Amino acid sequence: MKTLFNHRSIRNFKPDAVDDETLNYILTAGTRASTIGTMQMYSMVVSTRADIKEQLSAAHFKQPMVNQAPVIITFCADSNRFSKWCKQRGGEPGYDNFLWYIFGATDALLASQNVALAAESKGLGICYLGTTNYMADTIIDILKLPLGVVPVTTLVIGYPNEQPDLTPRLPLDAVVHYETYSDFTPSQIDDLYAELETSEQTQNLLKINEKENLALVFTENRYKKADSMLFSNRYFEALKKQGFMNQ
Amino acid sequence: MKTLFNHRSIRNFKPDAVDDETLNYILTAGTRASTIGTMQMYSMVVSTRADIKEQLSAAHFKQPMVNQAPVIITFCADSNRFSKWCKQRGGEPGYDNFLWYIFGATDALLASQNVALAAESKGLGICYLGTTNYMADTIIDILKLPLGVVPVTTLVIGYPNEQPDLTPRLPLDAVVHYETYSDFTPSQIDDLYAELETSEQTQNLLKINEKENLALVFTENRYKKADSMLFSNRYFEALKKQGFMNQ
Repeated sequence: MKTLFNHRSIRNFKPDAVDDETLNYILTAGTRASTIGTMQMYSMVVSTRADIKEQLSAAHFKQPMVNQAPVIITFCADSNRFSKWCKQRGGEPGYDNFLWYIFGATDALLASQNVALAAESKGLGICYLGTTNYMADTIIDILKLPLGVVPVTTLVIGYPNEQPDLTPRLPLDAVVHYETYSDFTPSQIDDLYAELETSEQTQNLLKINEKENLALVFTENRYKKADSMLFSNRYFEALKKQGFMNQ
Repeated sequence: MKTLFNHRSIRNFKPDAVDDETLNYILTAGTRASTIGTMQMYSMVVSTRADIKEQLSAAHFKQPMVNQAPVIITFCADSNRFSKWCKQRGGEPGYDNFLWYIFGATDALLASQNVALAAESKGLGICYLGTTNYMADTIIDILKLPLGVVPVTTLVIGYPNEQPDLTPRLPLDAVVHYETYSDFTPSQIDDLYAELETSEQTQNLLKINEKENLALVFTENRYKKADSMLFSNRYFEALKKQGFMNQ
């Protein structure tokens, strides 16, 4: 459990490869996660070849760690294999709709977290790539994903060449509600964000980003409404194209 | 890591409560998972009161373990708190679209897997409830979830009163692809499912379900196309109602 409390995202890796035994160990760990009806509606595409990583790096906004990390795993919601099996046995699969995208994405994400923790327990470092959802259509082409398969998240994995600090978290009360949801008053919001907003790290961010407060760093620089709308529509189109919206 | 390889879903619990220290430990473990931009776009609603569990049990198709387990945690994609904070600081949040449902769901699911593993490391048992996605609209009412909050998954947690066998997994080759996706030939599908299809467990299932083969147990009994279409549309409507489809 120490592994779990020690997690920090690693974005700078040593050139050392991950050996097959370690890779098989962390992939097997992925398969031990809970899965809807024991159906395993996901797949893990493991890319290590320089030419594939080069293409993936371009898709992931040229983040240098995608080229640098020895192993890239793209986790996908996958109804392809299961549906093929059903048809081959005379059954009519009904897994080409939004519900089964969600079930497949859930399977993929639980598996990814097991892979991440197993990797970290072996001294490896990991980072999740949110750009997977921005650029799903391009990743579908690079990885040759067939109908019924759509990328959900990506892990870059390798031996860490940095030891960053733990990233800050809000007080537990910001994310935990008891019995039912208690919505927040303005003064509760102020309290929950106070420590984060006054931290040295935040003061530095405000200088670098030339913003008056931390929220504006998010809404005006990092995650702008117009970008989110664009990528939202693109990801939704990718779901349709991959056959998850037949409902 | 032994915890991770020992996971089995528990559906029968002892009446023993989970003490506050243990509960705080597993919730804190949840918050250490990766989260999009350190934004924590999720919430965990912890229900332990008998009247709330009674309502949740009804929503989750009256599965008796929902009433029996001392702790139920509903994991939600949550843009409510973050968007309130942005508005309070003069920013324009753009997190009311499908992309941010996916980011929030990703955050929620990674946190849930940390909670599950931390719970198991403390001797607790867990089970994920897929019925969360079927019955999201009812759960939204029970837990009083505001705009910007939608349930993604649920964990029932308590001390195990059973020790079931590990559930079967397909060979690693069924879920792992190298470099790019290799689609399956009919004979590869036969090979990948051979061990599962010939197992004693499967033979028993075929008798109980009165089916000729295992695939038909899934397509005709457990996860029928018509049910999936119905629940798919309901979950999608819940996303719209909670404000995640403004794009």
